[in-house]
Amino acid sequence: MYRAPVEEIAFALKHVAGLKAALDAGTFGDLGEDLVDAILGEAGRFASEEVAPLYEIGDKVGAKLKDAAVTTPPGWKAVYKHWAEGGWNSLNGPEAFGGQGLPTMIGVAALEMWNSASMAFGIGPTLSMGAVEALEKHASEELQAAYLAKLVSGEWMGTMNLTEPQAGSDLAALRTRAERAGDGTYRIFGQKIFITYGEHDLTDNIVHLVLARLPDAPAGTRGISLFLVPKFLLNDDGTPGARNDVFCSGLEEKLGIHASPTCTMIYGDGFAKDREPGAVGWLIGEENRGLACMFTMMNNARLAVGMQGVAVAETAFQKALAYANDRRQGKASGYTGEGMAPIVHHPDVQRNLLTMKALTQSARAIAYSCAYAIDMALVSEGSAKAHWQDRANLLTPVAKAFPTDVGVDVASLGVQVHGGMGFIEETGAARLLRDARIAPIYEGTNGIQAIDLVIRKLPLGNGDHVFDYIGELDAVANAVAALNSEDYGRSAICLEQSLDDLQQTTRFLQKLLEDGRTDDALAGATPYLRLFALAAGGAYLARAALADGDAGRVALCRFFAENLLGETAALKDRVTGGAASLREAAKALLSA
Amino acid sequence: MYRAPVEEIAFALKHVAGLKAALDAGTFGDLGEDLVDAILGEAGRFASEEVAPLYEIGDKVGAKLKDAAVTTPPGWKAVYKHWAEGGWNSLNGPEAFGGQGLPTMIGVAALEMWNSASMAFGIGPTLSMGAVEALEKHASEELQAAYLAKLVSGEWMGTMNLTEPQAGSDLAALRTRAERAGDGTYRIFGQKIFITYGEHDLTDNIVHLVLARLPDAPAGTRGISLFLVPKFLLNDDGTPGARNDVFCSGLEEKLGIHASPTCTMIYGDGFAKDREPGAVGWLIGEENRGLACMFTMMNNARLAVGMQGVAVAETAFQKALAYANDRRQGKASGYTGEGMAPIVHHPDVQRNLLTMKALTQSARAIAYSCAYAIDMALVSEGSAKAHWQDRANLLTPVAKAFPTDVGVDVASLGVQVHGGMGFIEETGAARLLRDARIAPIYEGTNGIQAIDLVIRKLPLGNGDHVFDYIGELDAVANAVAALNSEDYGRSAICLEQSLDDLQQTTRFLQKLLEDGRTDDALAGATPYLRLFALAAGGAYLARAALADGDAGRVALCRFFAENLLGETAALKDRVTGGAASLREAAKALLSA
Repeated sequence: MYRAPVEEIAFALKHVAGLKAALDAGTFGDLGEDLVDAILGEAGRFASEEVAPLYEIGDKVGAKLKDAAVTTPPGWKAVYKHWAEGGWNSLNGPEAFGGQGLPTMIGVAALEMWNSASMAFGIGPTLSMGAVEALEKHASEELQAAYLAKLVSGEWMGTMNLTEPQAGSDLAALRTRAERAGDGTYRIFGQKIFITYGEHDLTDNIVHLVLARLPDAPAGTRGISLFLVPKFLLNDDGTPGARNDVFCSGLEEKLGIHASPTCTMIYGDGFAKDREPGAVGWLIGEENRGLACMFTMMNNARLAVGMQGVAVAETAFQKALAYANDRRQGKASGYTGEGMAPIVHHPDVQRNLLTMKALTQSARAIAYSCAYAIDMALVSEGSAKAHWQDRANLLTPVAKAFPTDVGVDVASLGVQVHGGMGFIEETGAARLLRDARIAPIYEGTNGIQAIDLVIRKLPLGNGDHVFDYIGELDAVANAVAALNSEDYGRSAICLEQSLDDLQQTTRFLQKLLEDGRTDDALAGATPYLRLFALAAGGAYLARAALADGDAGRVALCRFFAENLLGETAALKDRVTGGAASLREAAKALLSA
Repeated sequence: MYRAPVEEIAFALKHVAGLKAALDAGTFGDLGEDLVDAILGEAGRFASEEVAPLYEIGDKVGAKLKDAAVTTPPGWKAVYKHWAEGGWNSLNGPEAFGGQGLPTMIGVAALEMWNSASMAFGIGPTLSMGAVEALEKHASEELQAAYLAKLVSGEWMGTMNLTEPQAGSDLAALRTRAERAGDGTYRIFGQKIFITYGEHDLTDNIVHLVLARLPDAPAGTRGISLFLVPKFLLNDDGTPGARNDVFCSGLEEKLGIHASPTCTMIYGDGFAKDREPGAVGWLIGEENRGLACMFTMMNNARLAVGMQGVAVAETAFQKALAYANDRRQGKASGYTGEGMAPIVHHPDVQRNLLTMKALTQSARAIAYSCAYAIDMALVSEGSAKAHWQDRANLLTPVAKAFPTDVGVDVASLGVQVHGGMGFIEETGAARLLRDARIAPIYEGTNGIQAIDLVIRKLPLGNGDHVFDYIGELDAVANAVAALNSEDYGRSAICLEQSLDDLQQTTRFLQKLLEDGRTDDALAGATPYLRLFALAAGGAYLARAALADGDAGRVALCRFFAENLLGETAALKDRVTGGAASLREAAKALLSA
C-alpha cells in the first residue's frame, strides 16, 4: 500500500525546485514553510489513507455505463466528496472564486500524491482544474460567476472535449460544429471521443469545454472556437436544471485506469427530448480563437500528466522495495541472516530498485522545477516574467514526456522485481504498469512533446534561453567538482560530460532548424528529449545531494551519474548521426 | 492480423544462423532447402490462418476452472487437434517415437510463428516438447514406450512442475515429497504453483514431470528427484484409465496469456477418492539427480521462451506498421498525397517503427543462431561437439533474455504508435504488451539469465570460448569495412566499436571473477547481457545485409548500427564503473 513520501516531496520542492529560497524571499506573500509542510503532510495522509484504498476496487470494478449514465466504483463518490470538502480541489484555484491561490508547486505535489494513490482518481480533478484555468482567463464575467465557484470547490467537475475520431494529434481536422442561436448562445453538434470523466456520478453537474467550428469559420486550426456546455443547464438560481442535449454513448474498455470513464460524447443528437436538438453552449473567449484558449492551460495540463508518471513510479518503487525486503530466495554475500536471503540483497535486484528510485527522483525534480517556473512567471514582472515563462515553456514538454516514460519503465521494472508474482493481477504490480501506459499517450503523445521541444522551445529567446538553462545545470556540476569529495565518485565528470552532450546536441539541432533541415531535426526529437531529461535529472539529483549532504541523496546522485548518465553520449550520436540512416531505412522498409 | 513473415524467417535461418551452408554440406542428411521452405511455408499458413484467429477470443474468454477441470476458450480444442494432426507437435520429436527428427532450427522457426499468432497457444506445446526431451534422455525404456509416442504426436501433453510458493528461482527450497511405494513406483505429496497447462481439455491425458524430494534425500539441490505423474494412470493396453491423485486447485488471474491456464497443482491430497492418497509417480533418471535431468532440457526451453519475445515483437511491428500506413494525422514533408499524411511519414513515427523492426530482427538472429549451435552440437563429434555445445550454452541466456526484453519494448512502442487507440483493448496492441510481459520472467528471470551468462558461461573453454565468438562477429564487421560501401554509412565503425566494448567488458568481468569479486560481476550482469546482445545483433544484421546486398537489409543494418549500437559504450561504463556506486546506494537506500 502506498505511503506518501511527504519528506522527500517537500525536500525536492524546497531544495531542488527552489521553493525554500522563494518562501524565504517572500515571493509568495506570507506563505511560509510551516503551512507548506502542514498541507503536504495532510495531503499525504489523505492520499495514503483515503484515496489509496480505492485503487484496487476501482481497477476491478471500473466505471460502468447504463442508459447514458456512468457509475463510478463503490466508495469513489464518498471519497471524492470528502476530498473536495477537504479543500483539495481548490488549492490552486483563484481566491476570487473560493480558491486558495497557492503556488502551482503545492498543487502539483498534492497531485502527485492523489495519482500515486490512484491514477484513475487523480486524472478527473486534473481536467477540472484545466477548465477552471480556461474559464478564469478567457470566459465572460457572467460565465465565471455562474460556474467558477462550483468548479473551484469541486462541487462540479469540468471536462476537456478536443479529440474526434479523425482529429487526435492534429486538431485542424476537427469537425464538431457550432451554430449561433441568435440569443448569444450556440448550439453544438458532433461527436467527441476519449473524453476523460465525460460522464459520471461524482458531481451534480459536469461542465464540458468543447472545441467546435462555426459555419463561417476558416479551415484549419484558426477556425476553432471553445464553448462551455453544461450537462445540466442552470436555473435562474444557479442550480442545475434542464438536461442539456449532450450524452455519453459509450465507454472505452481500456488497458488501465479502469475507474476513469473514457467517454464518447454525443452533442446535439436530440438526447434532451423536451427541446430542439443541439447542445446549448456559451462561447469562451473569442470566436475562432478557441485553440489559443486551450493552449494557455496546456502547460499545466501537460505537467499534471507528467506528475502521473512520477506518481506511478513512486508507488511501483515502494511496492517493489517492500516485496524485495520480504521475499526470500537464494544466498547473497551481503546477507548474514538465517536461511534464504531477502532478494533485496542480490546485486541484480538492487540495480533494478536503484534504477527505479533514481529515475523516479529525477523525474520528480524535473516536474517540480517546471512548476517552479510556472509559479515564478505568475509572480514576476517584466523581463523576469518573460524569462520564467520561457523556462516554463521549455521545461513543459520534458516534464510531460520524461516522467511518463519513466512511469512505464519503472512500473515494468517493478513487475520484474516481483518475478512470477508480478504477472499475477492480485499482486497489483501489473496494475501499475497497465495504468502507467496511458500517460505517454494522452495530453499530447511523447513524440509530440519531443517535437514541441525541438521545434518550438529550442528557439526561445533567440535560441539563448536553453543555454541559460544548461548553464545553470553546469553550475551544479561545477559545485560537485569543487567539492572534490570521494563520496560522489566520478559524479562530477559524468555530469559535466552529459551536459556537454546536451550543449552540443542542442547547438546541432538549432543549426538544423536554421538550415531548414526540419525533418532531420524531427528525426532526432525523441532521443534529444531523453538526453535533455537525463542531463537535467542528473544535475537535479546533484543539487539535492549538495543541499544537505545526506548520505542517501549523495549515493543516489552518484548511482545516477555513474550508471545512467552514460546514455547521453549514445543519445547524442543518435540525434547527430542517426537521421540519414533513418530516412533511408524508412524509404526501404516502411511503405505500405 | 498476423501474417507469418516466412521469407524473412527462412532468410535469417539460412543466411544468418547458417542453415544454408549446413544443408549444402549435408550436415542434416538428405534434408534439403525445398523441404525446409515447404515446411516453413505451411507452418506460416497454419499460424496465420488457423492459430491467429484464436488470439482475441483466447484473451477475452481465457481458460476457466470448474470442479478441478479446466476448459480452454471456444475453438481452441479443435485447432489444437488439427495442429497436432498436421504433425506440428512432432517436428523435432525423436523418429523412434514417431517424430520427424528435424533440426531445432526448423522447430524454433515454427514455434516463432505459433507464438506470433498467439503466445498463449504457443507455450503449451513448448512445455510438452520439454517433457519429450527429458523422457527421451533420462526415462526408462518402459516409461518411454508408454508415454513418448503420445507426447510426440501431441495426443497427450506434458507439463513441468518446478515452482512452489517458497521455491522459485531457488529450487533448493523445494519441499514436495516423494515416498517409495515398494513396488518401484512412488507417491508424491505437495503443492506446485505457476504450472502452465497443468490442467486443460485439449488432450485425453496430461503427463506431469514433477520435482520432489525423497525422505532420505540430502538437503538443497542435490536432493531433488524427477518423477513422471500422469493425470490418468494407464490401463494395460496403454489407454488412460483411473484418475491419479493430482488436481488443479486454482487458476491464476494474470496480466496476459489468459488462454494459457496457470495452475496450482495439488499432489496426494486424496483427490482420487477410490485409492490411498498420494499421486502415483515413476522416477525419471536416478534418485536425487532430478535437477540434472531438468537442466538437459533447459537450453531448449529457454530458447523457446526467447522465441516468444521475437514472436510478439514481430506481431507488434506488423500491427503498428499497418496502423501507421492507415491512420492519417497532420502534414509530413515526405508525403505528397491529398489531405492529412499517413503517420508513417512522420520521422518520429518512423523512428519508432524502425527501432521495432531492428530490435525484432536482431533478436531473431540471436535466437536462430542459438538454435544452430544446438543443432550443430547434436550432429557433431569430438571437439566440434564440445565447441558447439559451449556455443549453445553461451548463447542460451542471451537468446532467452534479450528477445524477451525486446518483446516488451517493441510491444510497448507498438502501443505508442497507435496513440490513444493503443490503450483501448479492442485495438489489440495492448494485448500484445500484456502477453509479452511474462516472457522476461518465466523459465528463469532475465536477471537469472544474465547471472548465468556472467558466472557460468564466460568461463567456458577456459574463458576463451566467448572470445572465439566475438572474433567471428569481428570478422563480419571487418567484411563490412572491406566493402567500403556508402550504403552502409558508418556501420563498420559502429560495429567495430560495439564489439570492442564487448571484448573489453568481457575481459573486465572475467578478471573480476578470477579475483573473486563475484558481487561486482553480478552487479554488472544485466547491462552486460544487453551489451552482448546488441553487439551480436548488430553483427548479425550486417551478416544478413552482406548475404545478398538487399537494400532493405543494408538500410536496417545501418539504422541499427548508427542508432542503436551507441548504447554499448554506456553499457560498458555501467558494467566497468557502476558497481561501487550501486553498492553504496543499496546500503544507504534499500534496507528495510
